[in-house]
Amino acid sequence: MAMHSFAELSSIFNEKFETKHFPDTPENLYGSGAYFLTLPAKRIRPVMCLMANELFDNIHPDSYHLATAIELFHNFTLIHDDIMDKAPLRRGMQTVHSVYGEATALLSGDVMLVVAYEYLNRINIHVLRDIMQIFSTTAKQVCEGQQLDMDFEKLPTVSLERYIHMIELKTSVLLAASLQMGSIMGGASRGNRGHMYEFGRNLGIAFQVQDDYLDAFGDPEKFGKQVGGDILANKKTFLMIRAMETANPQQAERLKSLVNETGEIKITETLRIFSECGVDDWARKLKDKYLNEAFRHLEEIAVTATRKAPLEELAHFLVQRDY
Amino acid sequence: MAMHSFAELSSIFNEKFETKHFPDTPENLYGSGAYFLTLPAKRIRPVMCLMANELFDNIHPDSYHLATAIELFHNFTLIHDDIMDKAPLRRGMQTVHSVYGEATALLSGDVMLVVAYEYLNRINIHVLRDIMQIFSTTAKQVCEGQQLDMDFEKLPTVSLERYIHMIELKTSVLLAASLQMGSIMGGASRGNRGHMYEFGRNLGIAFQVQDDYLDAFGDPEKFGKQVGGDILANKKTFLMIRAMETANPQQAERLKSLVNETGEIKITETLRIFSECGVDDWARKLKDKYLNEAFRHLEEIAVTATRKAPLEELAHFLVQRDY
Repeated sequence: MAMHSFAELSSIFNEKFETKHFPDTPENLYGSGAYFLTLPAKRIRPVMCLMANELFDNIHPDSYHLATAIELFHNFTLIHDDIMDKAPLRRGMQTVHSVYGEATALLSGDVMLVVAYEYLNRINIHVLRDIMQIFSTTAKQVCEGQQLDMDFEKLPTVSLERYIHMIELKTSVLLAASLQMGSIMGGASRGNRGHMYEFGRNLGIAFQVQDDYLDAFGDPEKFGKQVGGDILANKKTFLMIRAMETANPQQAERLKSLVNETGEIKITETLRIFSECGVDDWARKLKDKYLNEAFRHLEEIAVTATRKAPLEELAHFLVQRDY
Repeated sequence: MAMHSFAELSSIFNEKFETKHFPDTPENLYGSGAYFLTLPAKRIRPVMCLMANELFDNIHPDSYHLATAIELFHNFTLIHDDIMDKAPLRRGMQTVHSVYGEATALLSGDVMLVVAYEYLNRINIHVLRDIMQIFSTTAKQVCEGQQLDMDFEKLPTVSLERYIHMIELKTSVLLAASLQMGSIMGGASRGNRGHMYEFGRNLGIAFQVQDDYLDAFGDPEKFGKQVGGDILANKKTFLMIRAMETANPQQAERLKSLVNETGEIKITETLRIFSECGVDDWARKLKDKYLNEAFRHLEEIAVTATRKAPLEELAHFLVQRDY
């Protein structure tokens, strides 16, 4: 049977996902969750799950339950992260707690996680235990990543190694597990499941390096976000951590004093030191390193190249190569 | 094999539950959850689950995983409820968010729910799907009950019917489901599972009627809480709802004006109207009605009376009869 492209699978999933996931009442509890699910979103993770299934075999009907569980889990984490970060907006839209209040947003996230497990419980009994185990392990790791992210905000410096570990937990493992679980639905061997996981894990890190890079050096028109947002917020990023590690004493002193600056000067001065330290070039190479490692794992999987095309397309959609 | 008493099962469960449920790091994330589990607690729900198993057959080893999942779920709801209620203390001890902050408490609750599902996933595959389904349905209902409780706080009046529905969701269904799931582990028939559920559901409502009653009319020394706490907090209770429904115009007016009062006068004046309206006698009868209904379902189960003794003992421990 013909493979589906990334766009085709997105459209198939979106149509299936646009169903009623919650009862009608209590209106605040379920309406707030339903509201959040109407916000524009790329649904990357569930589509990755379906692609990973199709890499090995026709899409199993249960994969849509699994993909739905993954997307609901992801949205649960976003609702709770927004409460923790006290974020009024997400991609320009009001967050759940800014519309419904923190208490209802908290409960709305809780119940969304439970509904995610309800979808998981519809999967064929032969794979249910394996899928449940990967899902829960990943869920714990995502919580760990969020905790580390909050812990790191209170520390003056964080090593590159620990930052990468946090990014893996907070971002990469869910991409990796979505691919791994999808490959199980497609009947992949243990070895191939592992390659799918590593493909996703490395792709996730490459994506985050790119995200941090674009915040500093991106074209504002293409990027769609304010350039320097991370710098203004004093966020630890791949660039800032590398700069702190390689700066000479004067540059390090200047970076520290810029923490208390605001406005355009803070951005331009920080970017100047980034460039002096060669952080931009380093970040592009780091991104390519993880991207190449991701593709190395995809190549290890012994299926025809045409079957891999949609996943390659997705990877290039998420992360652009630099050459 | 001999049945275990309530005290014996409590002690067996407590010993098993005193294990490490979480990894060591991140310390804030998992240490906060572990802290909460060290606070004194009666572990009623997991022990009910074990008792329900033993009513029908020897305790299945997997019932300890199930009982652990139930207790972790219950603690997850307490941690999140305390955040929503902004409660600094629970039973005289500091709540998780007052020690670790709201963000970590939120995440600590999230990860505890995930760990609860991990324990569920260790249950024999033949009952896993049934147990998972009851567990998730119940979890949703408990969230719904908490939302209704918060919604009701903002309303001037609530009907008795809606209040009972909220109490069922917030309190009763988890007792009921703990018994029902335990009975499944013991191999009970569908009919008997239903009776166990109804036993727990009615017992839970009776317990809440008693709790509301004791807050107003209890002996402070025996009760261990400040009498009139609900009155001072303007909480809707069985008593207040009944009083509002049966008060004459003058009494109703007085009850409304007392909302803005504080201190001892607020309590004594409210209690005077409660007594004038016969709310105390009504509440004792209502409690007995639900308690009798609970026992009616226990009696329907065709096992010997000696097997039922521990559950009867538990019911009388939770709710005292009035005659």
